This record gives sequence, structure tokens and C-alpha cells, in this order.
Amino acid sequence: MDDDDLRRGQPTVHRKWNEATAVLAGDALQTLAFELVVQTNCPNSARLRLCTSLAQASGVRGMVGGQALDIAAETSDRPLTLTEITTLQAGKTGALIEWSATVGPIMAQADTTALGQYARDLGLAFQIADDILDIEGDLETVGKAVGKDANAGKATFVSLLGLDGAKARAQSLVTSACDVLSAYGEDADILREAAKFVIARKS
Amino acid sequence: MDDDDLRRGQPTVHRKWNEATAVLAGDALQTLAFELVVQTNCPNSARLRLCTSLAQASGVRGMVGGQALDIAAETSDRPLTLTEITTLQAGKTGALIEWSATVGPIMAQADTTALGQYARDLGLAFQIADDILDIEGDLETVGKAVGKDANAGKATFVSLLGLDGAKARAQSLVTSACDVLSAYGEDADILREAAKFVIARKS
Repeated sequence: MDDDDLRRGQPTVHRKWNEATAVLAGDALQTLAFELVVQTNCPNSARLRLCTSLAQASGVRGMVGGQALDIAAETSDRPLTLTEITTLQAGKTGALIEWSATVGPIMAQADTTALGQYARDLGLAFQIADDILDIEGDLETVGKAVGKDANAGKATFVSLLGLDGAKARAQSLVTSACDVLSAYGEDADILREAAKFVIARKS
Repeated sequence: MDDDDLRRGQPTVHRKWNEATAVLAGDALQTLAFELVVQTNCPNSARLRLCTSLAQASGVRGMVGGQALDIAAETSDRPLTLTEITTLQAGKTGALIEWSATVGPIMAQADTTALGQYARDLGLAFQIADDILDIEGDLETVGKAVGKDANAGKATFVSLLGLDGAKARAQSLVTSACDVLSAYGEDADILREAAKFVIARKS
């Protein structure tokens, strides 16, 4: 939908094949996700909860809703506010990141609160880092077009918070994401590494 | 994907709004289907089976696969054979018609064989009737563009079987669909009416 030529340094599906194939590949992968989730090795009630939460995270109150807000913003006569862009990103990318982090506790029929909060912080930090890379990165390292959002005059976390403000906010979110895992002790170190990677990454 | 202006006499989503909205509406409805299926009032194992079968009917071995064959046929250097077009339609429209008919027996944890066969016959008859309407119907009654497939030189059941042959085949499928329900007696009369409607309809 952003009509980009590249993702992770590879040609996008609609460039390499065509738009119909891109739409169909998306539909096929979305439905495959539900097929795989149902095959998960855990109690039936947990498998059903995985399905419901995946549907909610992907649908109109999650990824689709966030993407729709993003599309609407393109033709809006004013830039988004910080609250609006945070809501947009919580749906567009945050909801499925959060879902992924809660799959473990759902399968184990354990409490999802800490991992859910961890993932919400990480997801927002990820998006702020993306906006920073759009300013500071170069195409070859990032693997997709850069400078696009800024050039399009779109509101981003950088345009709203400034570059230093955005970096500070991302850092504070990563700290919070790591702290919320305290009850898991060292067992959660790999998740803390993941949170730190999200803002250290160059692509 | 066929870029039609109308469906059921109403403007299509990509005409009334735009292509991104059409894709997102499709994604949102697909994921909503899984959310609703999980809420079905039946045993957990049946609800999981509904999810799996819906995923399979919608995905690459069902609707998406059939649609992909249809897109591929548009750029093929030869028209499809009768076998190929039957496979294509079994996926594109047949798989979800069959799924719908088996939801009842899956919920009741009963045998799906008769209703599955009924729906496969009905689904194929529906598509043959669609090809006939593309030749014999008019836009106002049908509610979408007609003469499109024939004008595009696409293979259809009519181009492969002739108009009379297509009508005879559709009638024979409806007879077979009604017969396979014999074990249900009069209880299945509404399904027999549905099968007959599929080829009697003018839109």
C-alpha cells in the first residue's frame, strides 16, 4: 500500500509479480496463520483463545484498523497528533507484536499481563526507531526506501518529538519493557536483548 | 481483481472508495470470520475443526488458489480445459460454499459426507449458471457487467460445453445435489430449493 519497491532489500511482491498476486499472497498467509494456530500443541481452550486473539490483533481493531488510519491520514488536511499516531501504530504494528509475545503464556494458560506490556513498549519503540531510521538510515543498510515519510510531509514520531526527543522516548520504552519482565529474572534475558536490539538496529 | 464497477447492482468498494480500502475491508472481514467461528456454540473440538476447515477452504488450496489460477489463466497463451476450469471453480467459489454446508454437521459432530457432496454439486452448478448469465443476462437484472468473460475470450463452461450443454450439465448437477440428500427426507427440502434456485436465478 505504500507502493515501495523494496522490503528487507528484496523486491516487493507487487513489483516482482503484480498487485493481484500480492493481495492473494497476503490473503493466503493470513488464513494459513489461523490453520497453524489451531494445530498448536496445547489445550483446546488455549488454542481457541489463540485464534480469537489473533483475529482481534489482525482485524479492524488491530493491524487493519491501524493501516486504515494510516491511509486516511495521507489525505487528511492536517498532520496527526502524537496521540493519534500512537493509536495508529499500536494497531498497525503493535497489535501483532503484542499477540506474538502473549502466545507463550496463552499456550501455558498463564498470566499474559507482563509479556503484553513488554510487547506494547517494544512495539512502540520499534516504530519510533523506524521513524528515526527513515531520517538517519541509508537505503542500502535499511533495505527499503528512506526519507519517504519526511518527504511526504507525514507526521512521524521524529517530526512530533524531534530527533533527540524520539531517541529518548524509544530508550525509555526499552527500559520500561525490560523492567516489566523482572518477575522472570534471567530467564527473560533474551527478551530484554530483543528490546534493546529494536532501537540499536540499523535496518 | 476483475476491476468490475458493480456487484449486486451496487458500486464495488474500490470504485466507491479506493483500492487500499477494498483490500483492507477484505482482510478485516476474513479475520472477523475466524473471530465469529470461534464464538460458535458447540464443543471446543468442533469449533477448532470449523477454524481449520475455514482456513483450508479460504486459503491456497481453496478460494485463494482458485483465484490465483483464474489470474494466471488471463495471461496464459491457451484457454483452460474443462478439467482446469472445474478445478479453478472448485477452489474459487466451491470451497467456501462446501464449507458453509458442512458447518451444521461439524457443529453437531455428525457426518459431513452428504452435505459436502450436495455443496460441491451446487457450487459447480452455481458457476455454470453464472457463465450462462454472462451470455443471456442483462446488466440491470444481473447486477454486474455481463458479456465480460466471452468478450475477453476466456474459457467458460459455456464456451467449452456450448449453451445447451452447459444448461444440461447444470440441471444434472442440481438433480444430483437433491438426490444426495435423500437420507434427510423432507427436512432437507429447503436445501433442495436452494439448489434449484441456483440455476433458476436471473441475477
